[in-house]
Amino acid sequence: MDINEFREFGHAAIEFLIEYLETIRDRPVLPDVQPGFLQEHMPSEMPEQPESWQEIMEDLKKYIVPGLTHWQSPRFHAFYPSQTSFPSIIGEMLTAGIGVVGFNWMCSPAATELEVIVMDWLGKFLNLPEHFLPSGKGNGGGIIQGSASESILVAVLAAREEKVREMKIKRPDLSESDVRSKLVGYGSIHSNSAIEKSGLLSATKIRLLDADDTSILRGETVQKAIEDDIANGLIPFVCITTIGTTGTCAFDNMEEIGPILKKYNVWMHIDAAYAGAAFCLPEYAHIKKGAEYGDSINFNLHKWMLVNFDCAAMWIKDAAKLTKSFNVERIYLDHKYQGESKAPDYRHWQLALGRRFRSLRVWITFRTYGQEYIRNYLRKHINLAGMFLNYVNKDDRFEETGQSLALAYFRLKGDDSLTRKLLDRINTRRNIYLIPAFYHNKVIIRFVICGLDPQEKDIDYAWNEVKTVTDELLAEMEAEKNKIPAINEIEAEIENLEITDKVNVITENFAKSITLCEEKTVH
Amino acid sequence: MDINEFREFGHAAIEFLIEYLETIRDRPVLPDVQPGFLQEHMPSEMPEQPESWQEIMEDLKKYIVPGLTHWQSPRFHAFYPSQTSFPSIIGEMLTAGIGVVGFNWMCSPAATELEVIVMDWLGKFLNLPEHFLPSGKGNGGGIIQGSASESILVAVLAAREEKVREMKIKRPDLSESDVRSKLVGYGSIHSNSAIEKSGLLSATKIRLLDADDTSILRGETVQKAIEDDIANGLIPFVCITTIGTTGTCAFDNMEEIGPILKKYNVWMHIDAAYAGAAFCLPEYAHIKKGAEYGDSINFNLHKWMLVNFDCAAMWIKDAAKLTKSFNVERIYLDHKYQGESKAPDYRHWQLALGRRFRSLRVWITFRTYGQEYIRNYLRKHINLAGMFLNYVNKDDRFEETGQSLALAYFRLKGDDSLTRKLLDRINTRRNIYLIPAFYHNKVIIRFVICGLDPQEKDIDYAWNEVKTVTDELLAEMEAEKNKIPAINEIEAEIENLEITDKVNVITENFAKSITLCEEKTVH
Repeated sequence: MDINEFREFGHAAIEFLIEYLETIRDRPVLPDVQPGFLQEHMPSEMPEQPESWQEIMEDLKKYIVPGLTHWQSPRFHAFYPSQTSFPSIIGEMLTAGIGVVGFNWMCSPAATELEVIVMDWLGKFLNLPEHFLPSGKGNGGGIIQGSASESILVAVLAAREEKVREMKIKRPDLSESDVRSKLVGYGSIHSNSAIEKSGLLSATKIRLLDADDTSILRGETVQKAIEDDIANGLIPFVCITTIGTTGTCAFDNMEEIGPILKKYNVWMHIDAAYAGAAFCLPEYAHIKKGAEYGDSINFNLHKWMLVNFDCAAMWIKDAAKLTKSFNVERIYLDHKYQGESKAPDYRHWQLALGRRFRSLRVWITFRTYGQEYIRNYLRKHINLAGMFLNYVNKDDRFEETGQSLALAYFRLKGDDSLTRKLLDRINTRRNIYLIPAFYHNKVIIRFVICGLDPQEKDIDYAWNEVKTVTDELLAEMEAEKNKIPAINEIEAEIENLEITDKVNVITENFAKSITLCEEKTVH
Repeated sequence: MDINEFREFGHAAIEFLIEYLETIRDRPVLPDVQPGFLQEHMPSEMPEQPESWQEIMEDLKKYIVPGLTHWQSPRFHAFYPSQTSFPSIIGEMLTAGIGVVGFNWMCSPAATELEVIVMDWLGKFLNLPEHFLPSGKGNGGGIIQGSASESILVAVLAAREEKVREMKIKRPDLSESDVRSKLVGYGSIHSNSAIEKSGLLSATKIRLLDADDTSILRGETVQKAIEDDIANGLIPFVCITTIGTTGTCAFDNMEEIGPILKKYNVWMHIDAAYAGAAFCLPEYAHIKKGAEYGDSINFNLHKWMLVNFDCAAMWIKDAAKLTKSFNVERIYLDHKYQGESKAPDYRHWQLALGRRFRSLRVWITFRTYGQEYIRNYLRKHINLAGMFLNYVNKDDRFEETGQSLALAYFRLKGDDSLTRKLLDRINTRRNIYLIPAFYHNKVIIRFVICGLDPQEKDIDYAWNEVKTVTDELLAEMEAEKNKIPAINEIEAEIENLEITDKVNVITENFAKSITLCEEKTVH
């Protein structure tokens, strides 16, 4: 592919994206495909000879796009958002074209330094405790990881090794693996699956603790767990507080938990993957209370701050605790500025050696929008979720309704199977996409504001969809209840039963028929 | 940013990349900056109000580009390549714009299925053993991870948990943490730092074993290590064979190692991060011998197959071993097709939950180039390295010269400090970028073919640079040797010495002066 083809292909790709994103509401948000659908349309081997970009774009439109779940559609209300934005898209292309790898300062100084700068900008914008800021007085710093899972795993591993180092001095009778086998970490039962997975991967026990009635992990629960575990000879080493649970966006009580962790010298990690964005809003300052106890924190720019996936910000109070845990030296990685605080070698702050120049997109996106726009953008999403909640609250068929940030939730009155049926039917229609969670031990449906440019009309559309399916479902349930069973259905049901069971089924159905006949007569 | 600005910015970004990549030879490959250089030019906070894309692009050119180490320059000969390509750049932009996250099949079926397809294409193209192919008979499969480090860590963790499951049955007297504390893994002393790091992160012992005289890890070494460790009560669980060491691109002897690992039921992972590309060349089939013993393998498309970073292909023989190790279930991640082999939930194959739609770039790049072009492209790089080696071999000031694939290496005759000086001087000039390694316990300089479009003229340029600096350095050394020491230098040297040492130094220098005078008289 020569420069002219690159230019043509590039312009065509931009036009494709404009068309795709402008017409995204015209496509069902969920695709109508079955597992294996794509294989039918693809050859079984890589082509031997080159193909033109025109052919490739044609196939992209014909085969790939119809198989996508459209995360940028404002009719996508599942999980949490993963929003892209125009400046971020261009930033990604520039990053790919510049094509540098930034594992140490020397191998592209601007890549490392721009990351330090944008992580400082972002930390200030989110009003994070000063100890996290690269420009702060201590040894704090920020890095862009690939995902919240990765950030959490890095925190858990750093906390693990820090505790091992501490215990080597306090308990020289224990071997390193003795210490590791006694380690125990904590998170809420409502924490993201990444917390449980960090336990699997780090080979440490992570206990998921009960939350209160509003899905909030409380200080006394953590205190009791720590005391019990210490009494049983275990060594508490980390607690992951969740600021914005996946289910209902609840906020663990860091003000209560923080001092307890401090007392027992347990690392506090804050997983604010989604809700961290709201730290920039003065009216949400309360959700950040207690963050001053944090040893590390993560927030996904790719969730709710206009930078496309992957872009997971992570700050740490004492960067030396990372580098001490993850440092492996090699002659081919040496360079003359290593160890300088202005030139962090980010490879010691993360799991992998290689790393993308992710800060470029962040820098471009932040400058394109500025602080005021981003604040208003978040507020708009929160208001849209409020608008949806209003609709639900006015309909007395729903219960357990609520809202936290740009997430609303609800369920149909009645047992869980009813809400599950509603959800299945909604998703089967493919016009909007919703997923379930648990709240008060019941299945609820989550409704999150997502997509590139959600508007009030999208909330009306979604509510109309929910209402329509609810109407249909409840009408059908009513009809089902009123149906007199057909004789052949009963015959099929009893065919393989013992004689006494046969008699029971017939008797039950006979009784039901009598009741329904009576009811109908009364009406 | 509206659609028109997006279009304008996009076109400007494409023109910027064309200009940057076309004129990349005009820039010194290493930047002339000191740690902290970028902060001076950046405000200390994110701007409050939006800025135009024109201002941003201006600053990109003015402040960021001069701080880059230019990985796409054909004058970059350090590490291994991380090549981008035109179709891959566009693919990256499309991925960012489509903006889907693919952690399970349902959340974008095409993203998952295209990954299965391109990993099958690539596995076939590289002539991998059939047991790795998604289309093979067994339970094999491929995934795109972010980096070789991540792939290796995934393999080590999967092997660790697999061994724990095995020992639970064989040795029910041992607890899980007893087992983990006895685990021992292996790699070559020449393996990448990622192997040692995987030991740190997985909290398992990884022993780096001695290689033979040509940096190859041999079967007997592995056998002895395993036997010794078993005799000492340890449990061998994984061995990472390196196909293409970082230092000299040596290939561990898998044909010898494989059967031994099989005998002791030790997981064999193959790290072919760079050299895996050459598996597609019939003339390099020998480096793949023994891969049939592999349980898992990784190869970086972003190193040497025209797909920009990050794009690390990994295959596994039995995917169930991954999913058994990494699976955590949540109601919000459930979907109706889960568990179907045609619809893998890739989140169970990797460390993180979230994942990019990386296969799109791969698909676009493979179709744009096709098999024949890629084979010839690799051959061209290998030939260019051979051309450089020829130059070095004809100059008898160099020794320990060699080549493996598109990597050549050499050193100056004499002690290590001489080669280090040569390397420092070359890099200080910033015209080409080289890094050191060890070979035969001596410092060598590596010369790798990298960059977007390396040509013969680039090899001439590099050789001229090496030769020029060598000429200068050796002339200076010679002059230094011929310098009669000045009296004040000697005075400074002896100032703090004991009287007998003072006399010795004076005598030595006196003798040296006499010798030099005689030599000069003779000439």
